[in-house]
Amino acid sequence: MRLALVVGNTATAGIAGISAAGASPALSRHTPAADAEIVAYGRTVGAPVVPVSPTGCPTPAILTRAVRDLVGFDLVVLDAGLAAPTSAPTVDLGGTPGGDVRDPEPVPDATATFEAAREFGRALGRSRPDEELLVGESVPGGTTTALGVLRALGEPFGVSSSLAENPTERKRSAVREGLSASGLDEGGAAGTPREAVRRMGDPVLSGAAGLATGAAAAGARVTLAGGTQMVAVAALLRHDGVEAPLSLATTCFVADTPGVDLPAAADALDLDMTVTDPGFDGVEHPAMAAFARGEAKEGVGLGGALALADRAGASTAALHAAIDSAYAEVCGGP
Amino acid sequence: MRLALVVGNTATAGIAGISAAGASPALSRHTPAADAEIVAYGRTVGAPVVPVSPTGCPTPAILTRAVRDLVGFDLVVLDAGLAAPTSAPTVDLGGTPGGDVRDPEPVPDATATFEAAREFGRALGRSRPDEELLVGESVPGGTTTALGVLRALGEPFGVSSSLAENPTERKRSAVREGLSASGLDEGGAAGTPREAVRRMGDPVLSGAAGLATGAAAAGARVTLAGGTQMVAVAALLRHDGVEAPLSLATTCFVADTPGVDLPAAADALDLDMTVTDPGFDGVEHPAMAAFARGEAKEGVGLGGALALADRAGASTAALHAAIDSAYAEVCGGP
Repeated sequence: MRLALVVGNTATAGIAGISAAGASPALSRHTPAADAEIVAYGRTVGAPVVPVSPTGCPTPAILTRAVRDLVGFDLVVLDAGLAAPTSAPTVDLGGTPGGDVRDPEPVPDATATFEAAREFGRALGRSRPDEELLVGESVPGGTTTALGVLRALGEPFGVSSSLAENPTERKRSAVREGLSASGLDEGGAAGTPREAVRRMGDPVLSGAAGLATGAAAAGARVTLAGGTQMVAVAALLRHDGVEAPLSLATTCFVADTPGVDLPAAADALDLDMTVTDPGFDGVEHPAMAAFARGEAKEGVGLGGALALADRAGASTAALHAAIDSAYAEVCGGP
Repeated sequence: MRLALVVGNTATAGIAGISAAGASPALSRHTPAADAEIVAYGRTVGAPVVPVSPTGCPTPAILTRAVRDLVGFDLVVLDAGLAAPTSAPTVDLGGTPGGDVRDPEPVPDATATFEAAREFGRALGRSRPDEELLVGESVPGGTTTALGVLRALGEPFGVSSSLAENPTERKRSAVREGLSASGLDEGGAAGTPREAVRRMGDPVLSGAAGLATGAAAAGARVTLAGGTQMVAVAALLRHDGVEAPLSLATTCFVADTPGVDLPAAADALDLDMTVTDPGFDGVEHPAMAAFARGEAKEGVGLGGALALADRAGASTAALHAAIDSAYAEVCGGP
């Protein structure tokens, strides 16, 4: 079992009120770099901050790391276009940080990043055909670009948010502006997924879609570990003619989001869906209580990691203890 | 426990008859890239060949991976200057492949690579002060550059070889030529370790010395996992005034090499030394028998990995079974 974590940035995160993946847009620049370090090392190493939401909800990376401590899995981080350096070891896809979704062409190198990731996925899948590959992401602002890509493809699904109150209208407005700037109608990029990402996406969508495409072509079992951003990745694959079996593993927090109809998306895109509830209701812990309130919800492969813990037979008590330890390790200081 | 594997290339490997870390100089270009993939994934992924010596002895990376399968340890690969791409995730130190030791300045960016590695080592050591850090290397031609650095520092120790018959005279001749081209007498870079690497070393020596220096400064327990190349790294640290405790963990194959007096080096450089014998004598297996004949001997952190297996209480039978499996996985093909 291996988590391939695709990380990068998009200037879309700078739109006011759109993302909680960082205490501020200036700090969210460091979020994917820090998330990669937390899953790789159990601590931030070079990143200057531990990512928290504006209300203090800690990054899902801590929970994913907790599952790694608990049941063990391998990790490979793919840099699809980081804006800040990370001390985590990465496979460099050659991409650059994405522009604002409202611009005409926020991801000019979408095709190159896709192809580098596909080549890596194919090689990894070929060399490890027995292995299940979880594909996760960290990119602040990523649900807005996911919405942009879904609309460009003509897919009707809604997206989730790392904020407890989903700023749906702000996202829709940004996507409308982006479609207009790109000269695209809704569905204008149906069947041309690289075009959809180039015009309306972010580098991480390119990397994740390329990775999943290559690994699936090599016969690997691919699980998209995440919520509505991974629905967008699945849509990119289906619009590219990929017919391989695909799984989606996400958290109950995404599944319970108003406006998100995961069963409909899974049905339309032929995804085998797993939703895991880590049992945080009523738990008095700064991280778990914040997730129970609907903050963060998903990201950094969390849904896939939780499904893995579940399959490994880890008890809820053991999971909570691991999260408590990982949280203390990341946030406690030495 | 974490193995930090510093990888890179030097044109020194192109000197005829000097290295067995690849079937030919053209293929040895891919050796460190492939070694990193083998330890990271248990297979080559992007690298075009599994590294073998001209006589077919497989790379020590397979043995190090076997220990990883057996007892488990974390891995971080540092790219100090690879000449061929790797699909392993890496921390990029910003270095470039080194030139020929016979040139006046084979590692012009020695100081920058050292500083990037020191910064990473300090951050890693600070964030994980409880962790033992093994520092290993893969750089074909690396014992010749190690000899060059030792002589530039004025240290008298001999070096080992990945060939069963150490081409000692060829190495000495290359080093003499390099010292002359660099305008250095033996000992001419005593107390100026960056100068010694810049004039006579390779990028991996820079990266390993920087990493060990930074990690030790942050209070981490540092074990140099390797043979005479790691003696050169230790010498670089001592000539830099680093007084922290340092361990050296290597194989009996290096310790038994004529002309290599490890106890004398360990004594002079104040190293706590561990030598491990994996019990390959009389074993009928293509990898283990080749090591028993004195080929390869060390590399890719092998001595440190074997010490780890020993400390974890792994039996010789379990170790041999793990090596057999890892070998089949790497060399068997799907």
